[in-house]
Amino acid sequence: MTQTASNLALLNQYRQQFPALSEKAYFNYGGQGPMPQGAMIAITQMHEYIQRSGPFSTEVNRWINLEAKRTREAIAAELGVAASTIALTENVSVGCNIALWGIDWRSGDHLLLSDCEHPGIVAAANEIQHRFGVEVSQCPLMETLNQGDPIAVIQAHLCPTTRLVVLSHILWNTGQVLPLQSIAQVCHAHSAEVPVRLLVDAAQSVGVLPLDLAELEVDFYAFTGHKWWCGPAGIGGLYVRPEAMVDLRPTFLGWRSVTKNEWGHPTGYEPDAKRYEVATSDYALFGGLQAAIAVHHQWGPAAARYHHIRELSRYLWQELCQLPQLTCLRTAPPDAGLVSFQLTNGKHQELVNELEQHGFLLRTILDPPCIRACVHYFTLESEIDRLVKLIRSLVG
Amino acid sequence: MTQTASNLALLNQYRQQFPALSEKAYFNYGGQGPMPQGAMIAITQMHEYIQRSGPFSTEVNRWINLEAKRTREAIAAELGVAASTIALTENVSVGCNIALWGIDWRSGDHLLLSDCEHPGIVAAANEIQHRFGVEVSQCPLMETLNQGDPIAVIQAHLCPTTRLVVLSHILWNTGQVLPLQSIAQVCHAHSAEVPVRLLVDAAQSVGVLPLDLAELEVDFYAFTGHKWWCGPAGIGGLYVRPEAMVDLRPTFLGWRSVTKNEWGHPTGYEPDAKRYEVATSDYALFGGLQAAIAVHHQWGPAAARYHHIRELSRYLWQELCQLPQLTCLRTAPPDAGLVSFQLTNGKHQELVNELEQHGFLLRTILDPPCIRACVHYFTLESEIDRLVKLIRSLVG
Repeated sequence: MTQTASNLALLNQYRQQFPALSEKAYFNYGGQGPMPQGAMIAITQMHEYIQRSGPFSTEVNRWINLEAKRTREAIAAELGVAASTIALTENVSVGCNIALWGIDWRSGDHLLLSDCEHPGIVAAANEIQHRFGVEVSQCPLMETLNQGDPIAVIQAHLCPTTRLVVLSHILWNTGQVLPLQSIAQVCHAHSAEVPVRLLVDAAQSVGVLPLDLAELEVDFYAFTGHKWWCGPAGIGGLYVRPEAMVDLRPTFLGWRSVTKNEWGHPTGYEPDAKRYEVATSDYALFGGLQAAIAVHHQWGPAAARYHHIRELSRYLWQELCQLPQLTCLRTAPPDAGLVSFQLTNGKHQELVNELEQHGFLLRTILDPPCIRACVHYFTLESEIDRLVKLIRSLVG
Repeated sequence: MTQTASNLALLNQYRQQFPALSEKAYFNYGGQGPMPQGAMIAITQMHEYIQRSGPFSTEVNRWINLEAKRTREAIAAELGVAASTIALTENVSVGCNIALWGIDWRSGDHLLLSDCEHPGIVAAANEIQHRFGVEVSQCPLMETLNQGDPIAVIQAHLCPTTRLVVLSHILWNTGQVLPLQSIAQVCHAHSAEVPVRLLVDAAQSVGVLPLDLAELEVDFYAFTGHKWWCGPAGIGGLYVRPEAMVDLRPTFLGWRSVTKNEWGHPTGYEPDAKRYEVATSDYALFGGLQAAIAVHHQWGPAAARYHHIRELSRYLWQELCQLPQLTCLRTAPPDAGLVSFQLTNGKHQELVNELEQHGFLLRTILDPPCIRACVHYFTLESEIDRLVKLIRSLVG
């Protein structure tokens, strides 16, 4: 394996900046990442600065604008796009909702979801259906985990009235990585009356995959800082492709969305993706997220981090495959950090509860019913060994 | 005056828990309130707890639900309503947007705004107009600051197609307190085809006025914790009257909005106002806001705080009225903590900048063009004296 004694010492030193990693074995990166100490310090310092120089003052307001700009720039650099395409949001769901509600839906339009989307996104699509008479349907991607072609499935489910396709870059339940560029091309090449846009839930891909969104040609990419980037909960964003921004209207609006005249009256929307931002937020999180992103760079480039994630998930998958009491959903090693498995006895929540009592944090997924274990690039092989050993003893 | 030597000593001691109040004279409570140390400590402690016991774990998720419940309860107690009517939001604007977008608008419906609403809310109303063919108009409340009857103005602007009236409880520019109960009665008694709902922007009233929303009969009351409550930026809420919740649909949706079946699939909306909440937020702010609200209780009841706010704003208003180079917008003492005034020379931003250099924080308003000074119940008379003296010397 890769974690030899010498790099293990470095890794252990690196891990010490994440307070959440001490005294437990963490496998819930897909739920929330552990915040590095530097991010927590940045948050506290920003709160202190705001109080010292404001809280509401010309100086602080200027500084908030600057920190928002820096945050969009730090995010944009990770995604391979211009900062003008990034709107800061509270979370992934808000980003998805901005794209879902910004389309000028007409009765009879079609919205296509995969069958592996998060319940909140499904609920938003259902509400769009109710409000605008839009037809919502799901295409079966779950069954393409081990065989079949997700691109062909999506293509087969596009109709002449399709306006929007919604799917996740990495499926949160099975861990499957979708071939996004090909899917985007299929959507954009589809001979519909109006362009078919592609909205991507990137909750599980940002901070995992090396990304170049401009090359991927996705229209909307909604993400969060608090999962694989290990930033604070409460800040994420939405990438809007310039070609798609032209006709994606802002929905929820506030003073951050608009340009104003000399009377302070709104005259229109901000020319860039700031138009999708609303109003006051926890500005201290700007610093927290920037600090978290910087920590990963300190470790190494995105491609190297992804390589380690795959090596470690392959190792976890291999070890789990040895256990007779469970079945991994994947029949081949995972392409990302999510490893989902089913117990023969089906008692998933019971095992997760027992594991948590032993300091091993995992979660259940309800569809398909399974337990999901996540590994990050800084997961220890020894953590994996201990997890597998504990599962073996608990379900044996 | 009221601040005698003995209670001044107590007041100075009380003020020491607000780091932002030291070494400056603060008059921007309507922009953002200074956070008490206890709120900042609560935020840090909650971050630490989340990292220590999670960040993502069964235990932390249970705790987040509990803290969200406690926060809704603390808010509800302040507003005189049941916790089930409170949705937590990121800010006031999001609360207003939930109400604005949750109505099943039909082309030709009418939305009435006052002419003193915040630009973000005006922009949202304009977007509703664009999307649904709704007629949006403004009624002139600014001119009722010193004479005239805002209730009559609103009544005169209701039409048979009016669905929603949007106004602020306390106008953010002139500081006028609107007679909300009478306005709500006029709206609800209006013989329109469908009920006329009243959406209130409570940015300047929550934390100032003693409130009993059930008695006021407003339908939607959107507020924030970070202004007069002195909580952290990034958390606020929306009160939805039970009668109005029946037909106010959620718009932006996430996992917090929905009920789910055994497969985790959405089955409907949460029965209470949680249906308007979306997804992950900065949970540490739950503790920050609860701590901030508790600090005010430690000082005294809402009615006593409001009494002091009015006494202090009257004092500021009286002193400003003595200055020949400026005119207060109000011809009578203010009913709340906002005191707006115009300089004869019109150089409002210049004076605000000079004041900020001297450690006196105020802001300009663009419509009507003026400077706005805010006093809270813990403002010092000596701060007011120093402010007036400084303005006199700077514009003299």
